[in-house]
Amino acid sequence: MNEKPLRFGLIGTGRIGQVHAASIAADPDAVLTWVCDPFVEGARSVAARYGGTATESSAEVFSSGEVDAVLIASPTSTHVDLISAAVDAGIAVLCEKPIDLDIARVEALRPKVAAAGVPVALGFNRRFDAGFAEARARVAAGEIGELEQLSIISRDPAAPPAAYLAVSGGIFRDMTIHDLDMARFFVPDIVEVTAVGTTTFDPGAREHGDFDTAVVVLRAASGTVVSITNSRHSATGYDQRIEAFGAKGMLQVANAGTSLVSLSTATAVEARPPYQEFFLERYAGAYSAELSEFIKLARGEASTSPTFEDGRAALILADAAQRSAVERIVVPVDLA
Amino acid sequence: MNEKPLRFGLIGTGRIGQVHAASIAADPDAVLTWVCDPFVEGARSVAARYGGTATESSAEVFSSGEVDAVLIASPTSTHVDLISAAVDAGIAVLCEKPIDLDIARVEALRPKVAAAGVPVALGFNRRFDAGFAEARARVAAGEIGELEQLSIISRDPAAPPAAYLAVSGGIFRDMTIHDLDMARFFVPDIVEVTAVGTTTFDPGAREHGDFDTAVVVLRAASGTVVSITNSRHSATGYDQRIEAFGAKGMLQVANAGTSLVSLSTATAVEARPPYQEFFLERYAGAYSAELSEFIKLARGEASTSPTFEDGRAALILADAAQRSAVERIVVPVDLA
Amino acid sequence: MNEKPLRFGLIGTGRIGQVHAASIAADPDAVLTWVCDPFVEGARSVAARYGGTATESSAEVFSSGEVDAVLIASPTSTHVDLISAAVDAGIAVLCEKPIDLDIARVEALRPKVAAAGVPVALGFNRRFDAGFAEARARVAAGEIGELEQLSIISRDPAAPPAAYLAVSGGIFRDMTIHDLDMARFFVPDIVEVTAVGTTTFDPGAREHGDFDTAVVVLRAASGTVVSITNSRHSATGYDQRIEAFGAKGMLQVANAGTSLVSLSTATAVEARPPYQEFFLERYAGAYSAELSEFIKLARGEASTSPTFEDGRAALILADAAQRSAVERIVVPVDLA
Amino acid sequence: MNEKPLRFGLIGTGRIGQVHAASIAADPDAVLTWVCDPFVEGARSVAARYGGTATESSAEVFSSGEVDAVLIASPTSTHVDLISAAVDAGIAVLCEKPIDLDIARVEALRPKVAAAGVPVALGFNRRFDAGFAEARARVAAGEIGELEQLSIISRDPAAPPAAYLAVSGGIFRDMTIHDLDMARFFVPDIVEVTAVGTTTFDPGAREHGDFDTAVVVLRAASGTVVSITNSRHSATGYDQRIEAFGAKGMLQVANAGTSLVSLSTATAVEARPPYQEFFLERYAGAYSAELSEFIKLARGEASTSPTFEDGRAALILADAAQRSAVERIVVPVDLA
Repeated sequence: MNEKPLRFGLIGTGRIGQVHAASIAADPDAVLTWVCDPFVEGARSVAARYGGTATESSAEVFSSGEVDAVLIASPTSTHVDLISAAVDAGIAVLCEKPIDLDIARVEALRPKVAAAGVPVALGFNRRFDAGFAEARARVAAGEIGELEQLSIISRDPAAPPAAYLAVSGGIFRDMTIHDLDMARFFVPDIVEVTAVGTTTFDPGAREHGDFDTAVVVLRAASGTVVSITNSRHSATGYDQRIEAFGAKGMLQVANAGTSLVSLSTATAVEARPPYQEFFLERYAGAYSAELSEFIKLARGEASTSPTFEDGRAALILADAAQRSAVERIVVPVDLA
Repeated sequence: MNEKPLRFGLIGTGRIGQVHAASIAADPDAVLTWVCDPFVEGARSVAARYGGTATESSAEVFSSGEVDAVLIASPTSTHVDLISAAVDAGIAVLCEKPIDLDIARVEALRPKVAAAGVPVALGFNRRFDAGFAEARARVAAGEIGELEQLSIISRDPAAPPAAYLAVSGGIFRDMTIHDLDMARFFVPDIVEVTAVGTTTFDPGAREHGDFDTAVVVLRAASGTVVSITNSRHSATGYDQRIEAFGAKGMLQVANAGTSLVSLSTATAVEARPPYQEFFLERYAGAYSAELSEFIKLARGEASTSPTFEDGRAALILADAAQRSAVERIVVPVDLA
Repeated sequence: MNEKPLRFGLIGTGRIGQVHAASIAADPDAVLTWVCDPFVEGARSVAARYGGTATESSAEVFSSGEVDAVLIASPTSTHVDLISAAVDAGIAVLCEKPIDLDIARVEALRPKVAAAGVPVALGFNRRFDAGFAEARARVAAGEIGELEQLSIISRDPAAPPAAYLAVSGGIFRDMTIHDLDMARFFVPDIVEVTAVGTTTFDPGAREHGDFDTAVVVLRAASGTVVSITNSRHSATGYDQRIEAFGAKGMLQVANAGTSLVSLSTATAVEARPPYQEFFLERYAGAYSAELSEFIKLARGEASTSPTFEDGRAALILADAAQRSAVERIVVPVDLA
Repeated sequence: MNEKPLRFGLIGTGRIGQVHAASIAADPDAVLTWVCDPFVEGARSVAARYGGTATESSAEVFSSGEVDAVLIASPTSTHVDLISAAVDAGIAVLCEKPIDLDIARVEALRPKVAAAGVPVALGFNRRFDAGFAEARARVAAGEIGELEQLSIISRDPAAPPAAYLAVSGGIFRDMTIHDLDMARFFVPDIVEVTAVGTTTFDPGAREHGDFDTAVVVLRAASGTVVSITNSRHSATGYDQRIEAFGAKGMLQVANAGTSLVSLSTATAVEARPPYQEFFLERYAGAYSAELSEFIKLARGEASTSPTFEDGRAALILADAAQRSAVERIVVPVDLA
């Protein structure tokens, strides 16, 4: 509380970078000191609104002596090098998911991160959603007894453009990866992955050999089974639900509505407006909470931030899901 | 259980009489022995289906020696005379509400009923609705602490024909009377009635000086306040809800749906089909339960059947509501 | 309507046999003429209540000349022989699921059934549940566009005794088989099965090499994916839900409640009593509807009764699920 | 958009004054230039946090030449004089409700306000609640046809201290006044008031001759009937609901939950945490929207801000309710 605000360098000023800039500006424990984007106009615009010096060079950020932490929101392909540079500079990292699309590059970086002792957090923001966090805490508190089944339903409102799909790494590494991390948030000890992917509606997905619909089943060493149901579209709005089933009962996290008003007529009762549109609405609060928790991590305080290890585990699971879906096999995994 | 079935004479074979005939036929503790209707074809048709001897003469029923109880489902104007005849014959009575539209006739009959010791029950079937009965029992069990406010919402699906309105006695004596009894089911000690009646949509009601919409507020000696919200139409189906509010919480009885299926689309979420259509659907179970409880009463066992006194009290409240609505005054009542 | 009631022979008078006896007695188009059980006291008791001649010999039923149809509710191991005998006798069959635990015996019987032209229906009663039937009809009517994902949640209230498990054929053939048929009710063209089974709470299941918890994923030729979530226990009551997700929206079938009353207090809002206890409550209406539809089938009218072929398909899927769960492989299936 | 921010003087820095200070600071179209409180430490504290010059003299605010508008959040007894002074100074006013507890003082001020042409808005913040505003807009758009009945349920979480009750003007002028304005938001043409007040649980209310529980029924010239159900306590949290019933259907505004998580166990299904605690949580967004709309009013743009006239009308209705509840009569009102 009485500490100086943590000085942030933001790398990447696209949509998600701007969300983080706003969170930093709104958090009394954080201050934005540098803003970096190769498209320097973007950096200048963000700096003008939220503070900090704009640059197109990430090296300048690292060598400035004015940042305690970097928030990496640049394209996925740059993450590994930027994390590496930050670790070299002894600067804490909050990096958007995924670490990389290539597990080999992640494994190569892993020993360095482990040895350096520099805090490296991954941006699995859904862990900080109030509903999911509450459900997990109540599971941990034993309200439903032993957790036996976890069902995650996660559907985006609409399929991304084909151009995006081309570089996304596929549905499992791009979209399901959030749900895989959510699975591990509740059930860390996953040992097996089975996935079914189909292409039911999106020609773009078909064109890129990708899937637009998927179901993934995870088995844990403990016996808990997790199922993930994904779709790249959802007419009713962003569909983000979790159901945790245990020996004593069930905890359900519902979708977030957009209105308290319901309409009943001669054809339907209690009809409400559709759910929230997408992640910026649904997880607005989660981004702030994620930042607060990362600040604790960067300061060496107790923190629940997901780490580099969590980012690696999610990617291993995503790779296994991809392999399972393509080769039609059950894939054992070892996350150690 | 081991007793012989109670022998019933049914008087009146209109819609509600047929409902009772079916209940009697389905109850192992009851048997239909006589069926009476001045329109004797109706009596014959019911007798053919559910048993019993058909007649157009109620006197024949009373003198037959073959009925232990009569179920009076004939027009309201006949109720007082039929109850009186049944009491003379020492035959138990289950009479549809109201006892009469004229409280003077009810008061005139009252001492005879009180003196005779013959069981006389009134057909306030809603007391036997599973939801309302559960709510009342849980209020009585203290689940919400002291009952402070009771809200009854009661809307029919569609206004009755003008011809019916002409003889109905008005909305308070015809429709609200059920809710007034429900109010007394939870809060017996009503001491004051205020009512607002308006005519918002039904030309038939306007023509007969009646209201199609009403709000009634009842004050109890205990301080509990009851509000009743009535309408003669409801686009969404039969609207029958209760909310009991107390010091420790609230019990709500919801409408009965017609389907477990809900639809979510781009314009609405979790829209369900409309509520049940009308009382025959909503209170189907209540009619059977009403009969069972009346059989106990007729046999001298402990019973929760509403009595002649309850029928009288409801009519006094209905009269007070009518007077309040017409004269625009607050009307004190004495139900003793 | 004007036809004579269909004359039924009931074989097997255990719990489910008694349910069918009651349905037959209640259906004006059916009459119970023979009741058979090797435990003849059971047959006599049912016959006394619902009609018919009691016997311990099924041969007597078939040769009586007094049955148009048999309802087979005897132990699974007797089904194949009884169906065969009925087909020989030219008597229509409504047989409880499964046809047999051994697909080889089913395949052996198949040509005979196909050739005989005698109606043989399987007792997949859930197809006749009002909610599931409505959902399927609305999917078929295009309300949610192309069906892309179907999620079936099916949890029993409590694990059966170990003695039952020993002869059940395992969770997939005994319990999941209902859900596998439900999957085919919506999505007939299943081509692949993956299953995860675990034993999380029931020592009896572990002892018999069975699972108490399962997730099954089915892939259809059309690309639709079905997931089934099973548990042998559920603290909140019988958990039977379906969610059909399509291009234009979602249809959800909710659990059936036991009360319209909800309680709100300082610790919880709108808490309702638990769901219905088990299948006898939840599917009470479905058993009657199943019988009506079978009567149409037996009379040669258009009917939606599931057939021998559906029973065979469900068993093939259950076998595939069992194999997938044990061998940890994805299992292609051919239901042709 | 391109205009300079509106310069605000805030008068009164208690709880609600601080809410407004935060709203002003957060609104890009507003700036806090003066903060006034006779308890000058309060003014200094708010000014330090949200900007502006602190003073104990309201006269200094009016003569500063640095305020375009005053936000009056001081005790009710000061409102009339402060509005009058603001009008003299030609400064726009947003005044917390009520204008005064004495209608005579309001009537005395009325001609001056009407003549001056200075915008004077009343702080009926609930009109800006997203749910209520949406419901009203949809009623106006004809979604439920002609509005026939409006039910407002409004219960505070806990009774205020007796000291507060002593100066509150009674439940109708203090608490119900919000609901009376909400009634007029939907149905402006109220012509009659009936109220029942009881004291069921709060000794403080009894001590001050006040009520802790009330039901108010309003009749409109149009025939629409409004009922208001109030309690000074609610175990389940702040209970703020509206149900608008019309010829074609019903719009319901539900309570705002605090969590998306529900729990189902062996004793209850889908139990959620209690509702939001009180108005600061429930109407957080409404305060911001109220400010935005007032800024439009102050700038001479089209605005939906409730005005001095609305404040006067609500007080007349509250007085009528008080008189009705005490004298047990139906009270006609003329809001012209």
